[in-house]
Amino acid sequence: MVTLPDASLIRHVTLPEQWLLDALQPLPPALRVGLWDLQSEPQGLALGDIEAVVLPYIGAVKRLPALQRVPRLRLVHTLTTGYDGVLAAVGDDVTVVTASGVHAASTAELAIGLMLASLRGIDLAARDQPEGRWNHVTRTSLADRKVLLVGVGGIGREIARRLAPFEVTLARVGTHARDDADGHVHGVTELVALARDAEILVVITPLTESTRGLVDARVLAALPDGALVVNVARGPVVDTAALTAEVLKGRLRAALDVMEPEPLPPGHPLWTAPGVLITPHLGGDTSAFAPRAIRLLRAQLARLAAGQPLDNVVRPGFTRA
Amino acid sequence: MVTLPDASLIRHVTLPEQWLLDALQPLPPALRVGLWDLQSEPQGLALGDIEAVVLPYIGAVKRLPALQRVPRLRLVHTLTTGYDGVLAAVGDDVTVVTASGVHAASTAELAIGLMLASLRGIDLAARDQPEGRWNHVTRTSLADRKVLLVGVGGIGREIARRLAPFEVTLARVGTHARDDADGHVHGVTELVALARDAEILVVITPLTESTRGLVDARVLAALPDGALVVNVARGPVVDTAALTAEVLKGRLRAALDVMEPEPLPPGHPLWTAPGVLITPHLGGDTSAFAPRAIRLLRAQLARLAAGQPLDNVVRPGFTRA
Repeated sequence: MVTLPDASLIRHVTLPEQWLLDALQPLPPALRVGLWDLQSEPQGLALGDIEAVVLPYIGAVKRLPALQRVPRLRLVHTLTTGYDGVLAAVGDDVTVVTASGVHAASTAELAIGLMLASLRGIDLAARDQPEGRWNHVTRTSLADRKVLLVGVGGIGREIARRLAPFEVTLARVGTHARDDADGHVHGVTELVALARDAEILVVITPLTESTRGLVDARVLAALPDGALVVNVARGPVVDTAALTAEVLKGRLRAALDVMEPEPLPPGHPLWTAPGVLITPHLGGDTSAFAPRAIRLLRAQLARLAAGQPLDNVVRPGFTRA
Repeated sequence: MVTLPDASLIRHVTLPEQWLLDALQPLPPALRVGLWDLQSEPQGLALGDIEAVVLPYIGAVKRLPALQRVPRLRLVHTLTTGYDGVLAAVGDDVTVVTASGVHAASTAELAIGLMLASLRGIDLAARDQPEGRWNHVTRTSLADRKVLLVGVGGIGREIARRLAPFEVTLARVGTHARDDADGHVHGVTELVALARDAEILVVITPLTESTRGLVDARVLAALPDGALVVNVARGPVVDTAALTAEVLKGRLRAALDVMEPEPLPPGHPLWTAPGVLITPHLGGDTSAFAPRAIRLLRAQLARLAAGQPLDNVVRPGFTRA
């Protein structure tokens, strides 16, 4: 193993958008900060000087190959909570850091919104509305529901916090069984057993090789009739084909902000399956993003400048002092 | 004033539906309980014997004139939180009791659902869905919003509880300025001034002569551009004509579970106004109703049988022991 220089020496950083550069003024004097969207050429820094890259928020995954052009790359910072593809796109010596926390409020509130819209028929009312149809139907409340939350990271925690006053019974699933400040976390090996008792299954794990297809045909088959599957994580965490089959049978319901593929192609049966609500990956993309992204990056740049460890490191790529 | 006999002597009660009668078995032996929906003839009790009537949950307002047929009526118990028209439909000597609390969870969660659906564009996504349109737009989050809650009764309290984890700034308005366990309640005289700073105005007051038209043209005009009006109370609490004018101008948004009149007639401009989400008075009508109604009525019948004061009395109609 090569021992790499200490992170405190990172001095050349790019940001993906001008508004971020503006909002982060004044920058720490120890840093030189350029602008690079991974599409056009970097501004303010030469490719050969760049050591740290903050990825764009939207569309980063497709632009990851551009990182190959950065010979001295040592740090990649996402503006997303997920880091799909980033670990594989850069060498093991490159530190990978996420914007965990920045999207938690926005994604967690969408999860609650999707549950409520689906259960309470807000989606159907919205479709009736242009035709002037007043179609009163007794609905299932969120109150009294048994909710199974798969994923207990930052956004999972925020979903749990927001669910707490809604008179639900909540069970949580993480990688390993354990107890935390909020009670017991079940291990992922218990997922099928727990699904048998879940009226709402909420998926909010990162997409990794161990979560790909985690909510598979077996888990879905274990859910009771009429259960609602809510996915605000990443599409491939749920087996889309198996879920499509279940909803087309009318056995399960679904409220999906993410699916596979995205955008969902025209004519895909999920678009028109009964009991399915689809939103176009709205998760973290709200007014909540900018102030939280600015707050995080300001703190992270100050840490870089001071040679302190960064928050949200998902892979430490170099030997720290 | 005539001094009426003590409430503990009420022994003849009607319930509006068979499932309630079944669910409340075994009934307190001291009571004789019949079945009456205020449309057909009472079963199990003669009109002349009835002293207490539990109104039907749906459609009670139109059936109130039937109470004139009950010569010994002394108590009316709604299955709604509101009691629109009940005080006027019976004499001052008749006690009026509501189902306050029974609908709180259901109505409060709908208020949150309407906010989230409107802000996050879940309604628009639901309309895009049948056409297979993937229309990603950056939205306003509920997080960081300034919410003005008008109404601090049972449902208002439950809305406030549910909003607490959503990273909003909440101001509350009641009849009179005061402090309660959750902080300061502004008086209704401050409503116009508070509206100037509100991004979301949520209305959850009972409909009384003092709240009719409470959210009038002046309050609506005070709201900043783009503000969202959420009504889960009763339609006439908001000036529907003034609100319609504001949303047609594109100045305000609205998410309305109640409006005036209901059902909203076909062709009414609110149906197709931009930024308006309409649900067909779904508020309390969910699976949450039955278990909570049963729990309340079981407790109330036990109190009647024991000669104890009832919960949720909005007008004591007789002299109590």
